[in-house]
Amino acid sequence: MPEFLKLIPPAEALALLLGALPDQDQRGEWIDSFQSVGRVTAENVRAPHHLPFFPRSTMDGYAVRASDTFGASDSIPGYLLVAGEVPMGSAPAFTLQPGQAAVIHTGGMLPPYADAVVALEQTQLARPGEIEVLRAVAMGENVILVGEDVKEGQIVIPGGIRIRPAEVGGCMALGITQLKVAVKPKIGIISSGDEVVPPEAEPRPGQVRDVNSYTLSGRVTEAGGEPVLYGIVPDRLEKMKESAARALSECQAVVITAGSSASARDMTAEVISSLGAPGVLVHGVNVRPGKPTILGVCGGKAVIGLPGNPVSAMVIAGLFVLPVIKKLLGLKVERPAASCPARLSVNISSQAGREDWVAVKLLPTSDGSVEDEAWQADPIFAKSNLIFSLSAADGLIRIPADVTGLEAGERVRVFLF
Amino acid sequence: MPEFLKLIPPAEALALLLGALPDQDQRGEWIDSFQSVGRVTAENVRAPHHLPFFPRSTMDGYAVRASDTFGASDSIPGYLLVAGEVPMGSAPAFTLQPGQAAVIHTGGMLPPYADAVVALEQTQLARPGEIEVLRAVAMGENVILVGEDVKEGQIVIPGGIRIRPAEVGGCMALGITQLKVAVKPKIGIISSGDEVVPPEAEPRPGQVRDVNSYTLSGRVTEAGGEPVLYGIVPDRLEKMKESAARALSECQAVVITAGSSASARDMTAEVISSLGAPGVLVHGVNVRPGKPTILGVCGGKAVIGLPGNPVSAMVIAGLFVLPVIKKLLGLKVERPAASCPARLSVNISSQAGREDWVAVKLLPTSDGSVEDEAWQADPIFAKSNLIFSLSAADGLIRIPADVTGLEAGERVRVFLF
Repeated sequence: MPEFLKLIPPAEALALLLGALPDQDQRGEWIDSFQSVGRVTAENVRAPHHLPFFPRSTMDGYAVRASDTFGASDSIPGYLLVAGEVPMGSAPAFTLQPGQAAVIHTGGMLPPYADAVVALEQTQLARPGEIEVLRAVAMGENVILVGEDVKEGQIVIPGGIRIRPAEVGGCMALGITQLKVAVKPKIGIISSGDEVVPPEAEPRPGQVRDVNSYTLSGRVTEAGGEPVLYGIVPDRLEKMKESAARALSECQAVVITAGSSASARDMTAEVISSLGAPGVLVHGVNVRPGKPTILGVCGGKAVIGLPGNPVSAMVIAGLFVLPVIKKLLGLKVERPAASCPARLSVNISSQAGREDWVAVKLLPTSDGSVEDEAWQADPIFAKSNLIFSLSAADGLIRIPADVTGLEAGERVRVFLF
Repeated sequence: MPEFLKLIPPAEALALLLGALPDQDQRGEWIDSFQSVGRVTAENVRAPHHLPFFPRSTMDGYAVRASDTFGASDSIPGYLLVAGEVPMGSAPAFTLQPGQAAVIHTGGMLPPYADAVVALEQTQLARPGEIEVLRAVAMGENVILVGEDVKEGQIVIPGGIRIRPAEVGGCMALGITQLKVAVKPKIGIISSGDEVVPPEAEPRPGQVRDVNSYTLSGRVTEAGGEPVLYGIVPDRLEKMKESAARALSECQAVVITAGSSASARDMTAEVISSLGAPGVLVHGVNVRPGKPTILGVCGGKAVIGLPGNPVSAMVIAGLFVLPVIKKLLGLKVERPAASCPARLSVNISSQAGREDWVAVKLLPTSDGSVEDEAWQADPIFAKSNLIFSLSAADGLIRIPADVTGLEAGERVRVFLF
């Protein structure tokens, strides 16, 4: 497919890529729940028992039979005899008879026949062993009922969702100390270019150190994949094919960061086509930066050719590599992208029909007390080959294809790096 | 200090806490730059050399002396003799004489005396060995000059900033394969309560499994700290003092999640006071959930008593534990909080004068194509003692103290978990 004959919009390109990838069979692996933050559940997690499995008080006060408090008020209090105190951490040794109340602490277990709790401040001591109840309570008031949090058998964490500390806490509450999670997909990363040397090397004139393998690795790791670095391959077709074939056999997807010259890009396309059917699906995406992106699927695995310059590689990794990792992880529940609202500092123009991503720096405004006005987004108009324009940026703003620019003062959503 | 006599606004409480903590001396530790994502730089990182250290082309085309192209146009092209081709990855073996051009690829090194690049599409072959230049270029056009990305000695990453993949890439470009980062502060976590048992235990009636140690650990890890679990301590003053003293001596800060009863909270305050001066600084914060929070500093280290219920613990960890970790890390450059814009689904009322945090679930709207209208925030009005209300939530919205509620349809910022 000759380069750039047909530039495809990014959303359409992504649909083509994902559509050509087979659905994943998630065998999964068992890990400690405690270590599972960031991983993706491989199956539904169900509650092994009701939570709570005994009725608990949400207040310091008195466990009562609600019916005993009906009609109670400041002026006409109800009188109840104190049957005892519920110990924390064990079942009360007594049952509650009509006309009785029991001292209970927050989190304590209601004695049998008690069905509500009167808050301490709604009572007063009438005489030793007897209280006045100053307010009626309804059945279940100030109580967490059996199964109110979750019921036995209920799905508490769906399969295909990324685990956060909140989910870990839920697992612990139910004694689920092991979780079946998606195996981290291995993403092979190949750097190519006769001018590229490893970071630890001292480059000679004309040489540059490899950057993209490492920024990409970072993003792959953040997304829940396992980066596998295949080093720097010389710009020779046979060498490239050899490395790419090896990476493809060992990984679930392969990313090739090509040199930026037209010949290097053409070679990447040729390599992808050689790896298996259907080969190259998209050659050239209608996005800036990142136009020379190549998307392929070979033998059921995604192979992506990224532009060589660091800003483009970062944008394109977000648009195409991360969605592939999500599909490989079996991620079904998409959480919203993290962003920060800001006001644009200057006008930005953009070519109609093309989606643009602009790196911005966020500067605090003097109006910082108002959350939505706390930041100003300052576009970084550096050449996208400048590596440190990435470090200077806090994130990216998207200019959709159907607008021709954004105006100074406009509210924008900055997608944070 | 008796409980809740004086409720302090969260911002003021945090200022009291951080103000009583001594500034940190960051000795730091050296680690592989490649492994440094999420860590915090312990010192300024400076460029060891100019980047690039040779002039590079940003285009496929011809390296030229800009002055040789002055006046060139489609109708009156300039003629230049092709002196050779710049090889990728090494210095050209020739210098550029007046009237000469050299074939150059993107990323190639300009030969001596070349000072600009004419893009390939702005040229055509006149005859073998000679080209027509159809457009004049200025000095430096289509070239990254020596030091244009960064200059030798320039601070490329400031001290006290969290490292992202972008910074790792920058380090690699400069051959900085080791970075000095802040040592992860150890945060001791003590769970207390006679009713609490470890997650792997089978609770008896009246007992519940420990949740907060694990949600807290997750958040501490995400923030760049190292959680150290001290297990579950019985609700007895001497046992609590003993555990807390040990945690304080071994860690840089201590968090105690107390039982939810008034007596358990009072004991936490007494324990903190016993650990060293100045002791308890704040007992009761004007925030919901999380009112029974206790903030103390003992011998220069923060000791925080968190409310026992999981939603409160999560909110208060965000408000107080995370800022302490940031201070311990020496984090100076604050990046914006990750959030998602949404429209509120229903009215929420709130008590004037008190800051409220409300857990919400984000539901995609039918208007998803418009980024700002893609999500609806649906408050989760569960009792804050329900553990799985946390898993159901995507994040929190803040209702400031000076408003009495938010209206359905209002635009809100959801701070993502």
